[in-house]
Amino acid sequence: MSHSAATSDRYVLSDAQIATMTAPEGYGLIERGHIAVEGGVIAHVGADLRPDYADWPRESLGGALVTPGLIDCHTHIVFDGNRAREFEMRLQGATYEEVARAGGGIVSTMAATRDATQDQLVDAALARLDSLIADGATLIEVKSGYGLDRDTELAMLRAARALAQRRGIRVRTSFLGAHAIPSEFSGQADRYIDTVCIPALRAAHAEGLVDAVDGFCEGIAFDTAQIARVFDVAVELGLPVKLHAEQLSHMGGAALAAQYGALSADHVEYATEADAQAMAAAGTVAVLLPGAFYTVRETQLPPVDAFRTHGVPIALATDCNPGSSPLTSLLLAMNMGCTLFRLTPAEALAGVTRHAARALGMTDCGQIDPGLRADLAIWDVETPAELAYRIGFNPLRKRIFGGEA
Amino acid sequence: MSHSAATSDRYVLSDAQIATMTAPEGYGLIERGHIAVEGGVIAHVGADLRPDYADWPRESLGGALVTPGLIDCHTHIVFDGNRAREFEMRLQGATYEEVARAGGGIVSTMAATRDATQDQLVDAALARLDSLIADGATLIEVKSGYGLDRDTELAMLRAARALAQRRGIRVRTSFLGAHAIPSEFSGQADRYIDTVCIPALRAAHAEGLVDAVDGFCEGIAFDTAQIARVFDVAVELGLPVKLHAEQLSHMGGAALAAQYGALSADHVEYATEADAQAMAAAGTVAVLLPGAFYTVRETQLPPVDAFRTHGVPIALATDCNPGSSPLTSLLLAMNMGCTLFRLTPAEALAGVTRHAARALGMTDCGQIDPGLRADLAIWDVETPAELAYRIGFNPLRKRIFGGEA
Ligand SMILES: [Zn+2]
Ligand SMILES: [Zn+2]
Repeated sequence: MSHSAATSDRYVLSDAQIATMTAPEGYGLIERGHIAVEGGVIAHVGADLRPDYADWPRESLGGALVTPGLIDCHTHIVFDGNRAREFEMRLQGATYEEVARAGGGIVSTMAATRDATQDQLVDAALARLDSLIADGATLIEVKSGYGLDRDTELAMLRAARALAQRRGIRVRTSFLGAHAIPSEFSGQADRYIDTVCIPALRAAHAEGLVDAVDGFCEGIAFDTAQIARVFDVAVELGLPVKLHAEQLSHMGGAALAAQYGALSADHVEYATEADAQAMAAAGTVAVLLPGAFYTVRETQLPPVDAFRTHGVPIALATDCNPGSSPLTSLLLAMNMGCTLFRLTPAEALAGVTRHAARALGMTDCGQIDPGLRADLAIWDVETPAELAYRIGFNPLRKRIFGGEA
Repeated sequence: MSHSAATSDRYVLSDAQIATMTAPEGYGLIERGHIAVEGGVIAHVGADLRPDYADWPRESLGGALVTPGLIDCHTHIVFDGNRAREFEMRLQGATYEEVARAGGGIVSTMAATRDATQDQLVDAALARLDSLIADGATLIEVKSGYGLDRDTELAMLRAARALAQRRGIRVRTSFLGAHAIPSEFSGQADRYIDTVCIPALRAAHAEGLVDAVDGFCEGIAFDTAQIARVFDVAVELGLPVKLHAEQLSHMGGAALAAQYGALSADHVEYATEADAQAMAAAGTVAVLLPGAFYTVRETQLPPVDAFRTHGVPIALATDCNPGSSPLTSLLLAMNMGCTLFRLTPAEALAGVTRHAARALGMTDCGQIDPGLRADLAIWDVETPAELAYRIGFNPLRKRIFGGEA
């Protein structure tokens, strides 16, 4: 009955509405149930509580909703510099060239990130991380990709790893050397891939910094042949791949991702029905990023119905980055997923729990089920739909990370 | 030098970046300045500090940004009931009729609000109010309009007044009896206006509950002749008026508002250039509500350029309501104003400070200027543009209300 049962090694949360997210569709809801936690792991979930748990410390949640801890499976939160002035210049009518002359664009983020120490990168990211934690995140992915040179790409990944030492959260890293062509390689994308990107990937992997390999397949970045060369190295190193694909045009990235059995293809506004079929066959998750869709005022909607029809799991993420999605709230990503992409609230919740875990290749979280980590979020809401319905409201009562509040 | 200077009756905030919002355009920025506060009122603002203030307790803000406390000049935060399930049903494909049969729509809010005690109305609103306060609000407007009977309209306004007793915030009330036609008056809008709305307005005014009179001029609500009858009573009672106008179609509401010298015309997506001219001549503020635009996926943009050309002050508000804008963050309203309506960040900040004050007829706040209330927000940002740039991030360090932190 202790108010702080979650400080014990084993305890029971009772009188909870539990969105287990264990079913392929819907919330897998237990209207009134119990969750037993031991050693940071879920021991029992159900409407009933066996006598075995009778003497465990128990905390009544008074009907509050419990969901899996939220998972942000696509972020670029490690970077330095501030692009608020660029946002302002654009709204004041500045042209792309004027913004570039004033030092704006991804080049400015690259320059500031290259200039930053690792501690500065960590500190800058912590403010954004704290915002994600504040509405319930317990696992996030973090990409490199603003260094675009070997040392800075590695520094970004070390900073990403360091975040997990500074806060109660897990971090999965993605090497994104193939994010953009730095100005010193302008017009020489192949040479950048061969002399910087791939060597940096090997070095980062040797240091244990890489959990997955990502790329940006787009007219303004890299084509499928260039991405494939990076993916071949990932395969050689035994690393899973994922891809920014079909965001601004149809480039064949989703099909390439599926061909490599990618964890996910991300953005995918311009993906086709055939892409959806290929992704379904490969088990590749569609990671939708409504914050970027909203910020760049895209009008092409991702083929959500095709993903549904073919059984492609749909995840949602913030894409937190300084240019096209300065978004640091998974609840808002859920609202945008519903409002802009017409996901149901249950799909949106699966998108930041069950399917986000899958997009990261993680099998120990994203659902509330015995044997999984006790990463939980407790919400002061009446129904699970409320998480996606409200805009700019944080009903998080408590976050539990590995069993600890 | 005290960390808690703002607990004294007089003190100085130093080393602040100050967006005074005193200029007709831009931030009225003082890059490095001081604000002296005495008795809850701003005594001095400037880059220099006269010797008079030398012995006042002083707090260094380390370069943090200070803005006027934020003002939400259009909310419906007093109501009961929860429409998250209706949001979910719609996304699951339910028709309007199916939602209505399941008890959804404004009727459900009306029924729940009529059933609620005044304490329940206050408690339900407090959670929303706390969200607005959390990102810096020091003054909000609250409307009636979910009772649609005399007693409940008065109960809503009493609840609105009570909010200011429960939190450090000021509340301005608007009587919105002409919000919708309750089912018991279906097809009898005129009879509703005459037998319920106007008598309720007189009763509410007699009890000192009304600061302004509002209406909803729309095909699904009331026409200009019906609104004019309500406004005539407002004039008789010496109350200022405002109007939900031109949201879904062009009905003539903005011109009517201007004709009555209204404080504001709100929504105004379908307003014309002629409306802008009339509003400018009448000094009527255009209150833009991007949360509703976003939620209902409107595509008609408000005539921002016409408002600029003719000098119509533009305010921004949440329109916080359970149906078309469950938004409880003024920072998000600012971001949406920029992203969706292409306001500049400075226009967005003026929209929730200087112009929002004007939309409420308040002359003692909304700017940082000697003689005005010390309602301030202190932000951990590098530039004022950052307030509108970020999405779902709250950089508020401290809120000062009437001089008190
Ligand atoms: Zn990305
Ligand atoms: Zn309204």
